[in-house]
Amino acid sequence: MEPAIVLLSGGLDSATTLAVAKRDGFDPYALSFQYGQRHSVELEKAHSVATAAGVKRHEIANIDLRIFGDSALTDDIPVPKHDSVNQLESEIPVTYVPARNTIFLAFALAYAETVGAADIFIGVNAVDYSGYPDCRPEFIDAFQAMGRIATKAGVEGQPLNIRTPLINLTKAQIIETGLGLGVDYSMTISCYDATTDGVSCGRCDSCLLRLQGFADAGVSDPIPYVSHS
Amino acid sequence: MEPAIVLLSGGLDSATTLAVAKRDGFDPYALSFQYGQRHSVELEKAHSVATAAGVKRHEIANIDLRIFGDSALTDDIPVPKHDSVNQLESEIPVTYVPARNTIFLAFALAYAETVGAADIFIGVNAVDYSGYPDCRPEFIDAFQAMGRIATKAGVEGQPLNIRTPLINLTKAQIIETGLGLGVDYSMTISCYDATTDGVSCGRCDSCLLRLQGFADAGVSDPIPYVSHS
Repeated sequence: MEPAIVLLSGGLDSATTLAVAKRDGFDPYALSFQYGQRHSVELEKAHSVATAAGVKRHEIANIDLRIFGDSALTDDIPVPKHDSVNQLESEIPVTYVPARNTIFLAFALAYAETVGAADIFIGVNAVDYSGYPDCRPEFIDAFQAMGRIATKAGVEGQPLNIRTPLINLTKAQIIETGLGLGVDYSMTISCYDATTDGVSCGRCDSCLLRLQGFADAGVSDPIPYVSHS
Repeated sequence: MEPAIVLLSGGLDSATTLAVAKRDGFDPYALSFQYGQRHSVELEKAHSVATAAGVKRHEIANIDLRIFGDSALTDDIPVPKHDSVNQLESEIPVTYVPARNTIFLAFALAYAETVGAADIFIGVNAVDYSGYPDCRPEFIDAFQAMGRIATKAGVEGQPLNIRTPLINLTKAQIIETGLGLGVDYSMTISCYDATTDGVSCGRCDSCLLRLQGFADAGVSDPIPYVSHS
């Protein structure tokens, strides 16, 4: 089996991406980040997902993006809350973290080179993507073009493919794909503003998209949510 | 004055790059990395260079590239030593750190977005470049193309320029440029294998290129070297 790097956040999308990488015959090397995000519960989830998938190696890179600030995911800026998915804004939200996927993929590129992997999986999605510029196909293509000439491996002829198996799927299709591959979504968390014991808020953009995805797939979401009664 | 990010390592090249950024009318924001390199003396040098240049803000990002390994700059692989610059190998040396400049530039991109900078300076050099793939002009062009569509700032029309003022200069020309701009090279260090108190080995690739550069410029190098008698 060929090695492949899989970016793993502990969320629904990356857990599904990991299952797809395995289905496609790759030997996954997982990579997560402690980047100063509000809650570290997502790293515990990432660890559980990696363990359940039998991943041989799971690295957690410590990088502190708080030195730059400017995001509701790393700063004291409030995470926006809504009552329904129809209220999501069409512009780039304050949960955008400057250059995050560029930084994540740059680390994945280093990891790929050191393990001899030609493939990097990232669970970006351009349908439900909430307006993040670094989830768009044109960004992924440009990163791949850069990455192919950035490394010693590239200069020596090692190919490089940034694989985005979810990019054109709806959230419901992602969930259906994962369930078909045996992903246990109770191990994942998507909330931007969960409690310290890992209960999701149910009202941030990410929770609303997740809940709508489960509803559209006709399946109930197995994780706990704060009750809003 | 427009803000610009300047990658600052504590070495001769980046100190010169900072002086060029100031000459060209930019307000420099410096960025250095603690990435698990053998000696932290280079960060002390970077701090001195930034202070002497009157830089308003100097961030040091903590990232541990040792989790990936595979380089003589971060691992216990011996740094190669030679007696003269003519013995340098033509292939990519073991001091290559996988995807290092991609990672450094990715962080610079985040920093640029948060301070509203359209310009990033990096002191890469394609003449004396020792075979590093991520010092080549085609790599820089590809990173710039990617960076222009990677961020919210880019989507909103902020331009992005990766500036490489040293890329076509010889080491002697770099030194002459810096001396003309008042750079104090006694504050810099280039050695891959310096002593803990900052004395350069004089025999690694980086020392040999530096010493040859000073010799070609007809100037003596003001920093201390281990004596090889």
